[in-house]
Amino acid sequence: MPYRPTLEFLLYDWLHVEQLSGRPHFADHSRETFDAVLDTCERIAREKYAPFNRTVDIEEPRFDGEKVILPKATHEAHDAYAASGMLSAAQDYDIGGMQLPYTVEAAANSFFAMASVSIGSGMLTVGNANLLLEHGTELQRKVFALNEFSGRWSGTMALSEPQAGSSLSDVATRAVPDGDDFESDALGPRYRLTGNKMWISAGEHELAENIVHLVLAKIPGPDGRLIPGTKGISLFIVPKWLVEVESPHPGPLPGGEGENGSVPVTVTLGARNDVALAGLNHKLGWRGTTNTLLNFGEGRYPVRGGAGAIGYLVGRPHEGLHCMFHMMNEARIGVGTAAVMLGMAGYEASLDYARNRPQGRPVGPAGKDPSQPQVRIIEHADVKRMLLAQKSLCEGGLALELYCARLVDEQHTGNAQEADDARLLLEVLTPIAKSWPSEWCLEANSLAIQVHGGYGYTRDFPVEQYWRDNRLNMIHEGTHGIQAADLLGRKVLMEGGKGLDLLAQRMQATIARAQHHPSLAEQAHALGEALQQVQAATRAAWSTANPGEALANAVPYMQAFGHAVVAWLWLDVAAAVLVAGQDDPASQGRLYAARYFYRYELPKIGAWLQVAASRDPTCAQMPEAAF
Amino acid sequence: MPYRPTLEFLLYDWLHVEQLSGRPHFADHSRETFDAVLDTCERIAREKYAPFNRTVDIEEPRFDGEKVILPKATHEAHDAYAASGMLSAAQDYDIGGMQLPYTVEAAANSFFAMASVSIGSGMLTVGNANLLLEHGTELQRKVFALNEFSGRWSGTMALSEPQAGSSLSDVATRAVPDGDDFESDALGPRYRLTGNKMWISAGEHELAENIVHLVLAKIPGPDGRLIPGTKGISLFIVPKWLVEVESPHPGPLPGGEGENGSVPVTVTLGARNDVALAGLNHKLGWRGTTNTLLNFGEGRYPVRGGAGAIGYLVGRPHEGLHCMFHMMNEARIGVGTAAVMLGMAGYEASLDYARNRPQGRPVGPAGKDPSQPQVRIIEHADVKRMLLAQKSLCEGGLALELYCARLVDEQHTGNAQEADDARLLLEVLTPIAKSWPSEWCLEANSLAIQVHGGYGYTRDFPVEQYWRDNRLNMIHEGTHGIQAADLLGRKVLMEGGKGLDLLAQRMQATIARAQHHPSLAEQAHALGEALQQVQAATRAAWSTANPGEALANAVPYMQAFGHAVVAWLWLDVAAAVLVAGQDDPASQGRLYAARYFYRYELPKIGAWLQVAASRDPTCAQMPEAAF
Repeated sequence: MPYRPTLEFLLYDWLHVEQLSGRPHFADHSRETFDAVLDTCERIAREKYAPFNRTVDIEEPRFDGEKVILPKATHEAHDAYAASGMLSAAQDYDIGGMQLPYTVEAAANSFFAMASVSIGSGMLTVGNANLLLEHGTELQRKVFALNEFSGRWSGTMALSEPQAGSSLSDVATRAVPDGDDFESDALGPRYRLTGNKMWISAGEHELAENIVHLVLAKIPGPDGRLIPGTKGISLFIVPKWLVEVESPHPGPLPGGEGENGSVPVTVTLGARNDVALAGLNHKLGWRGTTNTLLNFGEGRYPVRGGAGAIGYLVGRPHEGLHCMFHMMNEARIGVGTAAVMLGMAGYEASLDYARNRPQGRPVGPAGKDPSQPQVRIIEHADVKRMLLAQKSLCEGGLALELYCARLVDEQHTGNAQEADDARLLLEVLTPIAKSWPSEWCLEANSLAIQVHGGYGYTRDFPVEQYWRDNRLNMIHEGTHGIQAADLLGRKVLMEGGKGLDLLAQRMQATIARAQHHPSLAEQAHALGEALQQVQAATRAAWSTANPGEALANAVPYMQAFGHAVVAWLWLDVAAAVLVAGQDDPASQGRLYAARYFYRYELPKIGAWLQVAASRDPTCAQMPEAAF
Repeated sequence: MPYRPTLEFLLYDWLHVEQLSGRPHFADHSRETFDAVLDTCERIAREKYAPFNRTVDIEEPRFDGEKVILPKATHEAHDAYAASGMLSAAQDYDIGGMQLPYTVEAAANSFFAMASVSIGSGMLTVGNANLLLEHGTELQRKVFALNEFSGRWSGTMALSEPQAGSSLSDVATRAVPDGDDFESDALGPRYRLTGNKMWISAGEHELAENIVHLVLAKIPGPDGRLIPGTKGISLFIVPKWLVEVESPHPGPLPGGEGENGSVPVTVTLGARNDVALAGLNHKLGWRGTTNTLLNFGEGRYPVRGGAGAIGYLVGRPHEGLHCMFHMMNEARIGVGTAAVMLGMAGYEASLDYARNRPQGRPVGPAGKDPSQPQVRIIEHADVKRMLLAQKSLCEGGLALELYCARLVDEQHTGNAQEADDARLLLEVLTPIAKSWPSEWCLEANSLAIQVHGGYGYTRDFPVEQYWRDNRLNMIHEGTHGIQAADLLGRKVLMEGGKGLDLLAQRMQATIARAQHHPSLAEQAHALGEALQQVQAATRAAWSTANPGEALANAVPYMQAFGHAVVAWLWLDVAAAVLVAGQDDPASQGRLYAARYFYRYELPKIGAWLQVAASRDPTCAQMPEAAF
């Protein structure tokens, strides 16, 4: 089954996304407008992305001393994507957006991730601009966010440093006020930044006229020292090229909150800011996206006679991490979706291969006659197992990401109670949305290789690249370990455990609905048991109130939690299949994929939860000298 | 803990390999001679292999139209290895060997797999020559096997064809008698071969003076048609360069079995045989080893005025597959060991990284003060978990491979009963020795990447390459699916289930020994349960005597079987630790690794066995149209 019908089933028959057009914000929309967006994105992905996926893997970004060189195909894909308007798809009409539900935007973007994940579709640019809409001043929005939404400029998030990856409290980039008048700049309080940033995706390239870096840095205290910990972190806009802003009116430039909001501004590019490429990271996969080490204020591009790169404060001093988390959560759902779509690409490729490759004969008497022709490998039970596993893992992962996207819409346009519930559920589900597909859709990619046999490990077939590309997803935007500590150490505890309770209520509602269908009774029962196990393990892990004990097995806990969540969504999907009609092959396939998940995957949670619930100390107590 | 002490513990304190020198065949040996061999190999691996592991990944084999070009380092490593005498380490003195136990040979070769798996250490050459020792004529041995053992020539196994990978019965390479006098050639009945062979490792290169291809082909019947199925397959020696053999005595050349065995022969290279390189496979990993598509008899190198490549029959017609299996079993243990050593390399690399990389602070109150310096990541429980998992998986895998190697020695030099038991145990364990490390030491490599964080996916660190290299091991020399069908479809059933019974007896003996140690009682109990589960699942899978039902879940069955086997070996190792003394850090580490396996890994078997025992039909029944 190709991807599009699967996506449409989940959007319309399961999540009923077209009902969103009943809300005032989406009143101009309908299934027709949603489908038109999907059509457009599917077409651009097919024409401008998919044919060049291997190209961007082979022709890695390189630095010629002045510029980063990317394949021509990447420029063309970027231009086509920007021209589609997708960068501002979810934005309001009054800033040039389509006012599209986030769910539909995410669904449409999935085509690009499937076609060529590392050419990319502007996830960071959109996240960057969204952050500025939320936390920036009027002028910061106009100058930076709007030029990002239009595709004229692109954006980065510059958090990590060589010594501060997972540990953001150790950020050492320094921001000092730029002159006595630093607070009077129309673009925001002006600082000079010095420091090194690592792992910055799309940190340098020629795809756009300018690059808007959102940079975490610390403002020294009165004693000249940086404040330790995350509390000392502030957020800055550091453009690659400085900007000159002109207002058509004489007098002071517009800038203050809500003031002169409708005054148009003219932006031109000025001098080069002191942001210098220090190196490109050469990666295992995801090679089409430039990954950079950037030096801020090293002096390569001295600017306005002072030392340091010029940056403009966003929000208030020392509240940078709070602002940045707004962007990180979106990025985490984006990474999860990318992982799912790489899995889906491998599934389609291996399904196609299995349908066409003759090899071997059936097990048993029917296969004993070697004078009979070979059968296609899709007829072997073990190959079917590997295909069904991929389908179950990837479509389950897709359901998870779309469900989270739907919660984002609920948070923005639901009533107060629904919005708050959605917020809380998103808190609990975001670590799963990020981590689960990065592990299991990677496993799906490994199965896609396996289905191809020896051809799978040659570079003549696409599946080995999907597997390599997908391996980054368990690391970037917060490792598995970080997600697990967030889930068990924070999310299931916050607000008195209300998030987990809310999730349990949703699961129970699905169980109740599924029990109407005799064919789902076994699965409904299994989900109920799994939920109880997860809840019991959560309590047991924290029963000594000792974070060291509780969190020592946070990753196995998260693995089990993720499997329980996906099992829940599969049951919910299966119930929707039974409502929509179950006799066509696609419906049958969904029911088989759900059953596969319950029979082959869900039973794995016992082993994971056991160590979490018993606070197994084996790993934590292992003496270093004994390794 | 570096690798060498781990290896020595398993060899001497666990397997007591030095006791083999009590047997006549190994009488000249002692722990000193064994250690000397290990020293030599460790040194060559350190000097000639390890520094060039990335080189052979980057400088892939290429064909300039005449020759395959390999890096200089590969030639130097190959020469150093051949000069060490390791190619004939296990051979008898009278053919120039060291008469070393296979266990010690395998242990010594492990250093090369760890240092650079794809430079390789002649596994196929040795396997090829061993096959000829077993099945070749006296002259075939002298001419081909001895020149392989000396390192002057190298060997391949040419089984697969583009349309016949896992399904060898579909081999279509054709062998017809070469003239009326075809049976009078001193080198063996002479045939002309035409056909295409795929996935031939080291199929073309300039590392050795000649390449001895062992080729599966079919001799047509009287009607000119090939016999369908594996029964029609015969085995041929097809040298890249034809050989001229001279005896110092006039008269007929020596050739018949046992006849003129001591007459020395002089071998010179003659014309190029019609074996042509049709293409190189460009792979995901393991790139240092040339992987070829070879055309036999396409006419590029016409030879002696006839069509077809010249080949000499080995053994009797139509019994080729039987001969070849002799080589395939050795190759499967070799692949398993390679997978283990890649895992071990990743473990050492990530352990080193974790010991030196500062990042983050402890969980709980102690970590709340950001003005304190960061701790090394080995102090985090989750990093310890990932390191201990690697240790447990890789050292468990090493124990498995060494145990199998020790069985090979038992089969060759034990008394009749011991030898037969060893043969039967090897039948059952070979699919596990091949498959288990290829899955779980690959998982270990993924954890090694994860420990490195973002650095893990850059090509500045070695772990991403280990992961890529290891991905081939689940495919080449028989896929997971093939191994699983072999295990559940043949090995646990053969000779009335005697192999599985024997394995159960060995496990019970370990359980009985472990029960003397209170600290191992929990593990002994768990192993007993696991064994019962595996036995019950075996019976249940076959309870309907329907291969289609029994084998539909052969891979999950094999996963569980493998985990039970490795749990058994860990318990056996732990018991040996307690006997040898347990207070030093290395001993503690082994006990922790064993405990890790029992707490975190063994409980996974329930989920796998459940589908095997219930003959779950979900995958087999999935309609093709529903995918």
